[in-house]
Amino acid sequence: MSPRLIWNGYGKAAVRLVKVVRDGPDHGLHDLTIDVQIQGDFADAHVEGSNAAILPTDTMKNTVYALARESEVAPVEEFGIRLARHFASACPASRSVSIGITVHPWEQAGSHAMIRGSAERRTATVTVEGEALTVQAGLDGLGMLRTSGSAFTGFLRDRYTTLADSTDRLMATEVTARWTYARPPADWQAAWTAVRTAIITTFTTHESQSVQQTLYAMGAAALAACEEVQDIRLVLPNRHHHLVDLSPFGLDNPDQVYLATNEPYGRIEAVVAR
Amino acid sequence: MSPRLIWNGYGKAAVRLVKVVRDGPDHGLHDLTIDVQIQGDFADAHVEGSNAAILPTDTMKNTVYALARESEVAPVEEFGIRLARHFASACPASRSVSIGITVHPWEQAGSHAMIRGSAERRTATVTVEGEALTVQAGLDGLGMLRTSGSAFTGFLRDRYTTLADSTDRLMATEVTARWTYARPPADWQAAWTAVRTAIITTFTTHESQSVQQTLYAMGAAALAACEEVQDIRLVLPNRHHHLVDLSPFGLDNPDQVYLATNEPYGRIEAVVAR
Amino acid sequence: MSPRLIWNGYGKAAVRLVKVVRDGPDHGLHDLTIDVQIQGDFADAHVEGSNAAILPTDTMKNTVYALARESEVAPVEEFGIRLARHFASACPASRSVSIGITVHPWEQAGSHAMIRGSAERRTATVTVEGEALTVQAGLDGLGMLRTSGSAFTGFLRDRYTTLADSTDRLMATEVTARWTYARPPADWQAAWTAVRTAIITTFTTHESQSVQQTLYAMGAAALAACEEVQDIRLVLPNRHHHLVDLSPFGLDNPDQVYLATNEPYGRIEAVVAR
Amino acid sequence: MSPRLIWNGYGKAAVRLVKVVRDGPDHGLHDLTIDVQIQGDFADAHVEGSNAAILPTDTMKNTVYALARESEVAPVEEFGIRLARHFASACPASRSVSIGITVHPWEQAGSHAMIRGSAERRTATVTVEGEALTVQAGLDGLGMLRTSGSAFTGFLRDRYTTLADSTDRLMATEVTARWTYARPPADWQAAWTAVRTAIITTFTTHESQSVQQTLYAMGAAALAACEEVQDIRLVLPNRHHHLVDLSPFGLDNPDQVYLATNEPYGRIEAVVAR
Repeated sequence: MSPRLIWNGYGKAAVRLVKVVRDGPDHGLHDLTIDVQIQGDFADAHVEGSNAAILPTDTMKNTVYALARESEVAPVEEFGIRLARHFASACPASRSVSIGITVHPWEQAGSHAMIRGSAERRTATVTVEGEALTVQAGLDGLGMLRTSGSAFTGFLRDRYTTLADSTDRLMATEVTARWTYARPPADWQAAWTAVRTAIITTFTTHESQSVQQTLYAMGAAALAACEEVQDIRLVLPNRHHHLVDLSPFGLDNPDQVYLATNEPYGRIEAVVAR
Repeated sequence: MSPRLIWNGYGKAAVRLVKVVRDGPDHGLHDLTIDVQIQGDFADAHVEGSNAAILPTDTMKNTVYALARESEVAPVEEFGIRLARHFASACPASRSVSIGITVHPWEQAGSHAMIRGSAERRTATVTVEGEALTVQAGLDGLGMLRTSGSAFTGFLRDRYTTLADSTDRLMATEVTARWTYARPPADWQAAWTAVRTAIITTFTTHESQSVQQTLYAMGAAALAACEEVQDIRLVLPNRHHHLVDLSPFGLDNPDQVYLATNEPYGRIEAVVAR
Repeated sequence: MSPRLIWNGYGKAAVRLVKVVRDGPDHGLHDLTIDVQIQGDFADAHVEGSNAAILPTDTMKNTVYALARESEVAPVEEFGIRLARHFASACPASRSVSIGITVHPWEQAGSHAMIRGSAERRTATVTVEGEALTVQAGLDGLGMLRTSGSAFTGFLRDRYTTLADSTDRLMATEVTARWTYARPPADWQAAWTAVRTAIITTFTTHESQSVQQTLYAMGAAALAACEEVQDIRLVLPNRHHHLVDLSPFGLDNPDQVYLATNEPYGRIEAVVAR
Repeated sequence: MSPRLIWNGYGKAAVRLVKVVRDGPDHGLHDLTIDVQIQGDFADAHVEGSNAAILPTDTMKNTVYALARESEVAPVEEFGIRLARHFASACPASRSVSIGITVHPWEQAGSHAMIRGSAERRTATVTVEGEALTVQAGLDGLGMLRTSGSAFTGFLRDRYTTLADSTDRLMATEVTARWTYARPPADWQAAWTAVRTAIITTFTTHESQSVQQTLYAMGAAALAACEEVQDIRLVLPNRHHHLVDLSPFGLDNPDQVYLATNEPYGRIEAVVAR
């Protein structure tokens, strides 16, 4: 007796979708991870090797991006209903379609900038070496994102360069900062807050020509904000968001639908001092 | 020529310290991870196998908890200075001592409860099966902690039971919730917020006899808060915080200094329905 | 006095490169993560916002793939030297270039298949319910990869399909398996090994028309290998490897240089029973 | 109508158990993570706040360690059956008991030492600075464990010291190593293998007075094994394994049953050079 296929399901997991809503003075942002899972009569694919009933998971991914362009993605329950009904129709062999959506929260920080309400942590490092005492304060994991005001043009080009000039790209990062006090501030907590505010305000308002320039401006603002700070090291990963090409589906994409990536990423680091 | 030891350092990493401040009507909470690193003249330990100059890293851990009892831990920069100076003196062979502190942020939620401002995420799962449509909303990673109002007594005992009754323990969890709508609410976002608020309010105010009882009360409150919700599944890991025994150091510990743990943890799960 | 830039560096981190060496009967595989970091005189970019000296990190990524096509990538030290010298020359403002390479190990398993020597774990789940006893054995995290013998053609197409038929693609997965015993085998360890061997042998030898078909064949082989197994659940994520388009650099890419991805991934799951 | 409890379960997750089998010339090692989950009639605990039917999850943890002392833990399926039956009896309100076991694999490396067959990775870092070329090779994540031959005695003691001298403790670590070549070796791969072998052989055979001494001996052996290596940096976290106190249950524990921990850990680091 041949082995029986008693249950099966397939789909695309972890489709990373960022949609920017640009229809008012304040931009909106939706950062979602989407899973598509289909169950149904796919015995032929498993047993016979025929894929005629299989909607490719690559198509599922394309569809998520295309429908995100064609409709609202919030409330996510409604976007989920739209996706589920689409795939139920697009894949006739399906018996059930399940859409899972995880929302990654961001908070508005100015009209065109957001802060991720996530895993930010305050840090302190104290070193004693004989009589010398060094106190370094810092923060880790401060996620921020700009929807406008970030350019990257006029860079060095060689045989391997394919990147085009961009005068208005989406810029996302997760700041690590470490600053050293020349002497103890009157209030450690107030000093920490002042530097953090300087970093955030610079990110959200600076007209950026590069991550490097924004980083330097952040460092300069931190030094201006707290006179006891003698230097600051900043690390800014450049978390790339790729504008999705929707033209194969007859759709434009006026800076709205992005694919968020983790790897690879640009890594920009510098120390700014008085 | 024998191999030269050209640099060395050692210490204790990832000491997990939670301190509850109970001196006012509102309890305060400090949740820290602390690293101690010492450099100095420890060639004898490396080359000769003599440990006479080595302050054990276990002692470093003990010291962190004892000093947390004896002094304030905030601002963390000052606590770091105190620790660094202590180890510089306690370990005569040290040349430099470095203390790293990471602050895990919590927000006050009532007088005796906190919410972790961290990795909480909203979720939605939509399933279409023929004509049937199921919409499930939810949240992941909602960290919460009570500093009072949580007991666990009168449980089943057997040969392997060492746990004592507790009438006032620290209770910490990270809620996962999934609820199903019997029909679409008028406003998906408002419905989600109402359920989340019910979960938080119950946690922060419920006089708890067990995690199970709190879980059930949360579920009941969620059903009361949103009439479209037909059932709710709740998973509450019990993240144990052990009161540190400071008596070997001649110190008491009146519910102040805790060791936070990840493994093992209690896992409580139930479904509550109309 | 304006803030001084006292140190800076930038580069591309986490470039995921897989190279298949197909010049003998046994295929070779190199799975690398590469970091490029440049330090030098980039003050103009930071302070003035001029990018004229900046080689984009996107170009660094392109270069890694192009040089991987043009030369050997092993030993990795030599590939690192080649990359470092290339960027020192391609970026005149650089003062130092550092290349970090991490090798992800794979073991040969047949001529055209590899097993990842990684985080595989054996699992067991035992459930007692009244008199009923169920024993489920399993494995997690068994990474496997085929360099030939995997096709995906003739699938359902719609408006959103862009995927082309492939008669010979790279297939990579990380198997999760759980099988239930109808009765205790004579030797638990031998039974576990027999099922694991059946899974590996099927993956490495099966002429695959889809992940679904390979999954079913694995399940059938497991049932054949151990008569006490009554059913087996298999989950096979499809870890996509994209053939890199090197034509902008005047290079072909005859199934050699791939970009390995984590998100999104296909997720294929089924239960096969007697 | 009051909310109905329609499903519930609870238990202890992530109980970390290491058992050393010392009954032959070669020691055996079982490294397990165990989950206990009970379902049954616990409505009173949820609705009424009565814990009379609740076996504490702390007791479940104790029981795992005690039964690990009293019986074999391999094959894990049989240990799982024993645990499941025990809890079915110890908790009369249970209807089903489920035991999940994950096996963390180790390979024998000598009579009293093991290597973890896990996430080890080879690394290389190449830096070009003008004419200067530096090549550093390395490895990450090499897990190793000794079941005998490791002591720690005669250390510095102060008011906060509670650690007792140990003449034979379990020592576990996860080596990170980075070594620099003074000039290119004839064969990069052979050089890497020679250094790795020196590290492993030293760990498995060295009579250790401290992690520091073992680290230094490893470094010395690496320098001896490859004449092109000019220096080597080694980082050895001390992954503590606590001997479980079974005396409350009337059991001894002759260096057999351990609790494996992640946090905190000792961190030992040094550079050894010619």
